Amino acid sequence: MTLLHSMTVPLGERSYPIYIGEGLLRDAAWVGELLKARKTAVVSNDVVAPLYADAIHAARSGAETHDIILPDGEVHKTLATASKIFDELIEHRFARDDLIVALGGGVIGDMAGFAAACYQRGIAFVQIPTTLLSQVDSSVGGKTGVNHPRGKNMIGAFHQPRAVIIDIATLSSLPLRELRAGLAEVVKYGLICNPAFFEWLESHAEKLVSRDTETLAYAIYHSCQTKAAIVARDEREQGERALLNFGHTFGHAIESVTGYSSWLHGEAVAAGMLMAASLSERCGLLSRSDVARISSLLQRLGLRTDARGELSAESARLAMSVDKKVQKGRIRLILLRSLGEAFVSDDYPADALTSTLEAHLS
Amino acid sequence: MTLLHSMTVPLGERSYPIYIGEGLLRDAAWVGELLKARKTAVVSNDVVAPLYADAIHAARSGAETHDIILPDGEVHKTLATASKIFDELIEHRFARDDLIVALGGGVIGDMAGFAAACYQRGIAFVQIPTTLLSQVDSSVGGKTGVNHPRGKNMIGAFHQPRAVIIDIATLSSLPLRELRAGLAEVVKYGLICNPAFFEWLESHAEKLVSRDTETLAYAIYHSCQTKAAIVARDEREQGERALLNFGHTFGHAIESVTGYSSWLHGEAVAAGMLMAASLSERCGLLSRSDVARISSLLQRLGLRTDARGELSAESARLAMSVDKKVQKGRIRLILLRSLGEAFVSDDYPADALTSTLEAHLS
Repeated sequence: MTLLHSMTVPLGERSYPIYIGEGLLRDAAWVGELLKARKTAVVSNDVVAPLYADAIHAARSGAETHDIILPDGEVHKTLATASKIFDELIEHRFARDDLIVALGGGVIGDMAGFAAACYQRGIAFVQIPTTLLSQVDSSVGGKTGVNHPRGKNMIGAFHQPRAVIIDIATLSSLPLRELRAGLAEVVKYGLICNPAFFEWLESHAEKLVSRDTETLAYAIYHSCQTKAAIVARDEREQGERALLNFGHTFGHAIESVTGYSSWLHGEAVAAGMLMAASLSERCGLLSRSDVARISSLLQRLGLRTDARGELSAESARLAMSVDKKVQKGRIRLILLRSLGEAFVSDDYPADALTSTLEAHLS
Repeated sequence: MTLLHSMTVPLGERSYPIYIGEGLLRDAAWVGELLKARKTAVVSNDVVAPLYADAIHAARSGAETHDIILPDGEVHKTLATASKIFDELIEHRFARDDLIVALGGGVIGDMAGFAAACYQRGIAFVQIPTTLLSQVDSSVGGKTGVNHPRGKNMIGAFHQPRAVIIDIATLSSLPLRELRAGLAEVVKYGLICNPAFFEWLESHAEKLVSRDTETLAYAIYHSCQTKAAIVARDEREQGERALLNFGHTFGHAIESVTGYSSWLHGEAVAAGMLMAASLSERCGLLSRSDVARISSLLQRLGLRTDARGELSAESARLAMSVDKKVQKGRIRLILLRSLGEAFVSDDYPADALTSTLEAHLS
């Protein structure tokens, strides 16, 4: 195995390491050290488990290990599915000092993390994200949760993992559509706080889509670094962390109205980021050419930039009004002051939001 | 209204006040100040809501307030019932800065608190406990959760309330059996860390059972003080807080095996405390006369001290082995070194536990 990058998410007694490399899961002894516990439950899905569960069992070298295999997809990220994890943990008499391993994408990580947060009021878990989206976003920062039929991530907890293991090799089996969706969140980090990284992405778009290992590793490392720094300053989203939701309130509305099935999360975020950029332009903050640069990069990465024909402006607005970012009745949104500088606002003109929704939806 | 006692649970930025008095809920302006929020959800049950929900609505004086009425009883403290709270919160578009009020006993407090912990990853809640048990125990300290069919409080979170309002007047409508059950937890505080309070209880047993207001207020105040001090030193139960579980591992086994229906929690804890005392005697720690004093006080308070004829020693042992207090495969128990001094042990002789179970069960 080749360990390419490592870092610590600095959260005091809740600090934890992130390891990024090629072939990490193949090193049983190294993984075994990170998964030490009396009992371990590997929460995974029926797509990922056949590929990598054996590696986890090898790393555990005979210590008690149970697989909890869930159905794949955002549509299954529910309290009912989480409940199955609780059933299994109790069935196998898991105690407070045992360990959960989340092996899969963001849906698995969010549910396994939520189960870890709530089982006996909190047990340890390790994130092994196997999609680009979860590697650069959901596996870092401790947000866990499940969806409600009427809103995404409405039920959840903050619960930090013990460690995050990112093996770039897992991306070789990832469908191209999911790789592209993950790149949307990578672009987000450039847009909200790092213009130089945005430019780097503009000059490496094709290398990323073609899965060049070093290029992907750098993009993941940079994304995790950015997220870790923001989470360290604002673990429970009292302020700055909200910037990570750039594009997400729009994106969640798309996912929610379309039933979490036809749009991948990252795809919805890509369309949502362009809507947020477009609203920023309508507020006189961003130039038309900046919006065009964002649109162009997203398109080169193979991402849709609108949701026309899929949902109405009115249904999106309704979905946005139950989003977690609503405070005192106003929909708080993340806008861009420039490429690489985001801020929270509930002080935009109502008709600018209306015309943005109408321009990007139908 | 008469405010008899008040105190602060000192937990840094999570600190909160506890108010103890007579007729507090009748003072709409005073309660209204504590329940300030854009929207408030009053989680209660069909026994308590008819008695006190009007007082809450008066305190809110027209501000948006929704009642969420759940069925009464430990048997309903499930993920499915908690899920109904989530449904209502989403139905009424509750946001992160809104408020949940738990109006009822421990079951309501635990479920409303768990819903508050998880809804949008955490919103504020106020505890208004209306049973003695919840006033002296579950409303203070931030433990929230629901039961699993195979284990009590197996799914939950630590989530501190914003304030606790204890109105002694609510105890006048409490069935005598529930009052007695609450006194079991009061006795616990004397047993684990305060011999003087144990003696005070021995000399006030009849006044407590006859609901003398001042006597009850003192017992509640002292219990909350003791619990607050322990929680402040060990919020997430890494050490000392475990002492509050004195009698609970045995008690949970009784409740679990009998299906959370025939035994009230406090009743099971009373029987459990005597089993723990009896085990302490078998370990050579406690004298026979000390155990007799505990048994005598519990009986004067009208509490059962064994569960003979209700469950077998073997079924109790099995239930104990899935309890949260299991670590590294050993059942950790709280034992007494003397009346008023408890400690955590997983180092007792196995046959002493066996003979204790056999002596108190059948």
